[in-house]
Amino acid sequence: MNLIVKNSIEKISIIGSGNVAWHLSTNFVKIGIKVTHIFGRNTIDVHSLCKKVNAIHSKSIKDLPKNQLVIICTPDDAISNICKSIDSSCPIAYTSGSVEIQSLPYREKIGVIYPLQTFSKNIKIKLNKVPFFIESTNNLLQKQLYNLTLKISNNVKIIDSIQRKKIHLAAVFVNNFTNHIIYQAQNYAKTNSINFKDLMPLLEETFNKINIESAFKSQTGPARRGDNNIIKQHIEILKGNSKEIYMLLSKSIKDTYNEKL
Amino acid sequence: MNLIVKNSIEKISIIGSGNVAWHLSTNFVKIGIKVTHIFGRNTIDVHSLCKKVNAIHSKSIKDLPKNQLVIICTPDDAISNICKSIDSSCPIAYTSGSVEIQSLPYREKIGVIYPLQTFSKNIKIKLNKVPFFIESTNNLLQKQLYNLTLKISNNVKIIDSIQRKKIHLAAVFVNNFTNHIIYQAQNYAKTNSINFKDLMPLLEETFNKINIESAFKSQTGPARRGDNNIIKQHIEILKGNSKEIYMLLSKSIKDTYNEKL
Repeated sequence: MNLIVKNSIEKISIIGSGNVAWHLSTNFVKIGIKVTHIFGRNTIDVHSLCKKVNAIHSKSIKDLPKNQLVIICTPDDAISNICKSIDSSCPIAYTSGSVEIQSLPYREKIGVIYPLQTFSKNIKIKLNKVPFFIESTNNLLQKQLYNLTLKISNNVKIIDSIQRKKIHLAAVFVNNFTNHIIYQAQNYAKTNSINFKDLMPLLEETFNKINIESAFKSQTGPARRGDNNIIKQHIEILKGNSKEIYMLLSKSIKDTYNEKL
Repeated sequence: MNLIVKNSIEKISIIGSGNVAWHLSTNFVKIGIKVTHIFGRNTIDVHSLCKKVNAIHSKSIKDLPKNQLVIICTPDDAISNICKSIDSSCPIAYTSGSVEIQSLPYREKIGVIYPLQTFSKNIKIKLNKVPFFIESTNNLLQKQLYNLTLKISNNVKIIDSIQRKKIHLAAVFVNNFTNHIIYQAQNYAKTNSINFKDLMPLLEETFNKINIESAFKSQTGPARRGDNNIIKQHIEILKGNSKEIYMLLSKSIKDTYNEKL
């Protein structure tokens, strides 16, 4: 595919002022793309981001410049309504992992820039290592979004909505679920006078190992060994969702190795 | 508590030749503690470890030197029977997270050296950062085990069996369950033409964040946002244990934030 385009994107508007808007805006500005206007519901955050990237704080979506790319960095369920309010001359890109282009109101130039990362405003990210997934129903826009994103990341790929949704699902496991499991451990530690700092070397090593061998090979613990006596004791100690999570994951580990060994 | 002891341990025997035996033996030898004898079921592994630490390969537990500490590094369910075979003159320490001293056959000198870490033979560990938990029903042995362990780790604590079991339970979440969640993601990626390498920056960042803020604060994703539409779509894609894990963890995340916000 020929990805050279004459009309490269040099100015953008942003909708949203959350973590994704923050990281995209600041990184685009760093490499010389102008973020001219920002619109968002949280006026304090929008104001703060405008100041950071020297943009105009738009009071309404109608105020955004015509014929200029608008990047929507909002929660998924807001995207459809926002699209309807954006001037028809503006190409749109949104950053969601799961919203299909076909599910949104039809327009000629609409696409996706999906960064596969978890963002917090206060935590710096090396964006050049973050994979970005691009999609558009319009060939020219797809090339433009690809080239634009390539300026901030070394890992940009064009994929369709179905594959993007699958990657998002895998990301839910890798980030959201592992994080919640660690929350469970932190919460349990707190209520049982365990210093979570003592668990940090184990947590670090758990993740180091994934760089060296597959999670399938790395698995250890009572469920892996089939040590039902310990599993029973642990289940007796736990309550509520923690107990259910313990039971289901232990069952799933047992199933995984009974089937495969 | 006065932890100075005159009769410090200078020679040990090891039972087992798995990951824990491997890391303990090599690290003890490094700091001048002699591992004189090793006994284990897997003769190839025992032989290899004996060669590594210059120890004698014992053909029977009866051959281990009398009056010398024996460290049992075997799965939990083997400990009780092994204890019965060890000469009554030998103090014993075992490395389990969950086996209570009181559940084992009574003897005067029995204790625990529990390393809170996941070990693989081929993966080097900075043992000096690993927390070790010590326990003994005998005061002198407890001091001796504490001092012995302090030679290989900077983080050694004396705790009772109940607290040790609780720490082990937290460790199951931190290591075994997060690892299994990542296995689920790797397995899903494999069967859906997703390159898991694209998920590595997300995985790394997930763990970096834990060093900066609590998992409670770090939580993101569809369940955290209450995005039931996406959750429903993901559940439709998944099958078997993955589906059940997705449903339970999403429910647990929702419950966590509905209750607390």
